Amino acid sequence: MSLSRQEILLVDYFAQYISDHKKQLLEKVLNERTRHVTVVLEDIFQSQNASAAVRTCECMGIQDIHIIENTTKYEVNKYVLKGSYKWENLIRYHKRGVNNTEVCFRHLKENGYRIYATDPAEANKSIHDIDVQHSKVALVFGNELHGLSEYALAHADEKVKIPMYGFTESLNISASVAIGLSNLIAKLKHEQENYGLSVTEKDELRLAWYRKMVKRSQIIEKEFLRANP
Amino acid sequence: MSLSRQEILLVDYFAQYISDHKKQLLEKVLNERTRHVTVVLEDIFQSQNASAAVRTCECMGIQDIHIIENTTKYEVNKYVLKGSYKWENLIRYHKRGVNNTEVCFRHLKENGYRIYATDPAEANKSIHDIDVQHSKVALVFGNELHGLSEYALAHADEKVKIPMYGFTESLNISASVAIGLSNLIAKLKHEQENYGLSVTEKDELRLAWYRKMVKRSQIIEKEFLRANP
Repeated sequence: MSLSRQEILLVDYFAQYISDHKKQLLEKVLNERTRHVTVVLEDIFQSQNASAAVRTCECMGIQDIHIIENTTKYEVNKYVLKGSYKWENLIRYHKRGVNNTEVCFRHLKENGYRIYATDPAEANKSIHDIDVQHSKVALVFGNELHGLSEYALAHADEKVKIPMYGFTESLNISASVAIGLSNLIAKLKHEQENYGLSVTEKDELRLAWYRKMVKRSQIIEKEFLRANP
Repeated sequence: MSLSRQEILLVDYFAQYISDHKKQLLEKVLNERTRHVTVVLEDIFQSQNASAAVRTCECMGIQDIHIIENTTKYEVNKYVLKGSYKWENLIRYHKRGVNNTEVCFRHLKENGYRIYATDPAEANKSIHDIDVQHSKVALVFGNELHGLSEYALAHADEKVKIPMYGFTESLNISASVAIGLSNLIAKLKHEQENYGLSVTEKDELRLAWYRKMVKRSQIIEKEFLRANP
């Protein structure tokens, strides 16, 4: 949704508290941000893995991360995260008594994503052959021990795997996310002109990020709203 | 070095204890193995990171991993390794009172490697632009907190970085190794016909792997040597 007039003024108001250097960095990051590719983590139980995945997404410019918690609570390891989570949209699915994977997949499909389940055992298609030109891509990674749920495997649009050449049949989750994303992002920047956010999305995100960059932003915002009702 | 006549016979002797399925898998893995690319880990202190790196190397077909321990002892996390280490050659540099990085780099250069230091801060060249056609590649990763040593940065042939687009300025080590290798290996298989091991290297490795695959191989080998002096 577009920013209200008040929010537009608020962005300007916050801007005075942020150095030019930081503002330039923010605009640079904002221009590289994408929702054309998103990552879905289903029941990852090791906080180190989930955290490394979030950090990799931030480094690669992925804005949205979908976290499904049917059997496992999402927990983070702040040392591994390095503050990356605060720039990300973590969309969590953790209602009791429903299949959260189903809720997540429905949401993704409604938003135009083609869903790729990573499945080292059964997929024939390589992760390197995902088409980024004709639709948005949601890449789904499963639990460290059991892989993806039956629902996820049955309802994904396609299964993909990372090419491997050793005796060890699976990569660690953080390695898989890194390989999948670095490849997709490189391709996106070559093959898909419209990977960036819309002007409206950028405006929203700029405000959200300003709120995090400015110290005591809640107090400053309250003062601003009192003066600009 | 080529196998001795006795060793050749020993390979045949071990073979009867290994299923055809396993032998086929071994030959497949052996044919994909490479020393054209190698990984160097300098003073990695988190066992989870070092272990994930070793596992990624095994999955990607990298045979040799060079582990430098100047300030930090290499320790592994068996849960993360998933048995991958036993198929790898871990070459450790951990003498006291010497610069182990210097020893390692000398060894690599004598063996025809061009050394690429990963350095997110200073490199201008992307890891995606490493040339795999004209020389062997050693990719060096540094400590989680301090990065690479001054010696490593000063004596590498080139510095490279992984392209990043976020606020977070560094990827976790296991993510970096995964991105670097998956990219190099994909390129190697397209651009470099001679990435594989020599016949002699394969013979040596087959014997080493048979010794690991056969249960109680030490006892069986002793019996064999007694019967075939």
